[in-house]
Amino acid sequence: MKRLWLNAHAATMRGGRYSIIEDAALLVEGGRIAWIGPRHEAPGGADETVDLGGTWITPGLIDCHTHAVFGGDRSGEFEMRLQGASYAEIAAAGGGIASTVRATRESSEDELLASAERRLRNLLRDGVTTVEIKSGYGLDLASERKMLRVARRLGERLPLTVRATCLAAHALPSEYAGRPDDYIEHICTELLPALAAEGLVDAVDAFCEHLAFSPAQVERVFQAATALGLPVKLHAEQLSSLGGSSLAARYRALSADHLEYMTEDDVRAMATAGTVAVLLPGAFYLLRETRLPPIDLLRRHGVAMAIASDLNPGTSPALSLRLMLNMACTSFRLTPEEALAGVTLHAARALGLDAELGSLEVGKRADFVAWDIQRPAELAYWLGGDLPKRVVRQGEDVR
Amino acid sequence: MKRLWLNAHAATMRGGRYSIIEDAALLVEGGRIAWIGPRHEAPGGADETVDLGGTWITPGLIDCHTHAVFGGDRSGEFEMRLQGASYAEIAAAGGGIASTVRATRESSEDELLASAERRLRNLLRDGVTTVEIKSGYGLDLASERKMLRVARRLGERLPLTVRATCLAAHALPSEYAGRPDDYIEHICTELLPALAAEGLVDAVDAFCEHLAFSPAQVERVFQAATALGLPVKLHAEQLSSLGGSSLAARYRALSADHLEYMTEDDVRAMATAGTVAVLLPGAFYLLRETRLPPIDLLRRHGVAMAIASDLNPGTSPALSLRLMLNMACTSFRLTPEEALAGVTLHAARALGLDAELGSLEVGKRADFVAWDIQRPAELAYWLGGDLPKRVVRQGEDVR
Ligand SMILES: [Zn+2]
Ligand SMILES: [Zn+2]
Repeated sequence: MKRLWLNAHAATMRGGRYSIIEDAALLVEGGRIAWIGPRHEAPGGADETVDLGGTWITPGLIDCHTHAVFGGDRSGEFEMRLQGASYAEIAAAGGGIASTVRATRESSEDELLASAERRLRNLLRDGVTTVEIKSGYGLDLASERKMLRVARRLGERLPLTVRATCLAAHALPSEYAGRPDDYIEHICTELLPALAAEGLVDAVDAFCEHLAFSPAQVERVFQAATALGLPVKLHAEQLSSLGGSSLAARYRALSADHLEYMTEDDVRAMATAGTVAVLLPGAFYLLRETRLPPIDLLRRHGVAMAIASDLNPGTSPALSLRLMLNMACTSFRLTPEEALAGVTLHAARALGLDAELGSLEVGKRADFVAWDIQRPAELAYWLGGDLPKRVVRQGEDVR
Repeated sequence: MKRLWLNAHAATMRGGRYSIIEDAALLVEGGRIAWIGPRHEAPGGADETVDLGGTWITPGLIDCHTHAVFGGDRSGEFEMRLQGASYAEIAAAGGGIASTVRATRESSEDELLASAERRLRNLLRDGVTTVEIKSGYGLDLASERKMLRVARRLGERLPLTVRATCLAAHALPSEYAGRPDDYIEHICTELLPALAAEGLVDAVDAFCEHLAFSPAQVERVFQAATALGLPVKLHAEQLSSLGGSSLAARYRALSADHLEYMTEDDVRAMATAGTVAVLLPGAFYLLRETRLPPIDLLRRHGVAMAIASDLNPGTSPALSLRLMLNMACTSFRLTPEEALAGVTLHAARALGLDAELGSLEVGKRADFVAWDIQRPAELAYWLGGDLPKRVVRQGEDVR
């Protein structure tokens, strides 16, 4: 079955630029792009033609950093804080990440699946066709397995490509209080090998920060991941500068994420390693941070910048990736074109999927969105709203 | 026809608080609330019962400050600015409010209707059942009439209550360059009386700011409005402190809006006059303002705070009022309960409609939203997402 999609302008995002084809046509066969170009040059022989109604098409959006699977939510804590409760009071009331760990451990796999599915359907409706999901609220073998199994099941139930990342080194579970090295040892020698053997892990992530794990501890996790043949990623330089992003580069990480406090040396190291900088403007906004990631340095050194929702219950309860485009422009001063590359081609690179996804090019999967807009910059311009007219994955309508 | 809605918790917003009824029932007759209370006390005699499926219901949201009718958009200017263009370059390229005035004047009534309808359908889908629309991009009699006629037609075409506000004193049109008093005179003696006589004006607004009109000029507009029996509103204290909000209070304005630079004297005057403070966190966010409206003073003096989208092409291209709840909490530190009151009861007051709308109480219109949430704070907590399960206006489903 060859299907020819036409009557749309295309922002193909080839090379991380708009790379526009006006009045484009797209031939899809076997779920992949068989041909793309100006409509008047389109090849014949299609079995079916679809009129896109004068929309703009872009690659399907890719949310390359989420914590979309979790028990409970933290809206109660959000409200308490705005009512004037202190962090100590919130902790005493059982708040913070510990409350999400507790709720996640107590939830059944089916409960986690149902709540995450609702969240992902919101992302999908807004144009996302690929999503990364991290574990990291289980913090023991059984609970991390449960989260990663939910990620796998979401990829089967929903018309989304799901990548599962093991983030067991997210926080120290209470049963290891005062013994972080023992927990790291447990991750490296038991937890990761077991979950990897079960085929549940596509990449390994960690949180490098004073309130989480040190660079030396993260390095042990990276060594274990590397020994298992798994690529790594890192939450780095969000609240302080520990050199996590340089460490990530040394291990040829797919990405280092957050990065508000990174130095120029870190930027250089990432550029050399080809590690993607994943920027998370939702958490920046919600925490009312003022220190910006060094966007100009990243540009100057040619580090690819991706943008993600960071969907999580504490610091970014974001159900729209497109809203992150506006936040990346408004808060981080990215251009709309950079922001769009950040949720397409560069996000694909941050997942190691750029040979398959992230731009509209021959041979890649036919994942695309037809938007009810007049120019691509509108994707970053409008705050909210329901702009996708069609979401297409592997050549089939999915909304 | 009496219809009994049940199986939902209700945040009734009576008195501007959540005023929760758990496991509530709502009897609707003739489009109005005939009874509301705990389900086990519900009266008999309903012709029909509707199961709300364990959702939460709130009053239909009210967006009490929008500029939803305009020609063109400013996504090109948004992009230019992020690409590094200066204000002078953008003005030279025909940007700024002048470009919206030009595009609005050049658009036909049907074109304005079509583009505004798309925007309002986004607001509606997100839970809005009442919206105020200002003119102010026409700036001559024919073009202001065109905008206000579009507002009236939107109220007929869409299942939304639309209030039309004449904002001819929004900016100085180029044909009056250097003669602001002449333009004000034209508004007061010709434009306003004509549009009021045509039944197109529910309220009169002006922009009191150095780059717009002085308090003395605004006062002339207020006098003309008052002579026509029309209530007034004011854009005041957004960028500097001119005492516009005190002036508004002196004319018993329904609302004064923006208010970042208001003083405690202004707050006192508004409290005495019962003028609502309309806060616009979308523009604050998009302009990266740092000066907050004096929330604590407004609380202390008992001034009702409303929240609106300010939907406009330049400083707040916002297609979701619910997103403004998060921004009101995140940027202005309102509680979720205050924010929700700001888009329900207090927004109704800002439109002079609080006897009819804004809370779920006997005698008011049966406008409500059934939300897919576990507690009301989630309305402010989630960023984006499609949370309304049903939107009901005057007792009928409208989404
Ligand atoms: Zn994260
Ligand atoms: Zn306004």
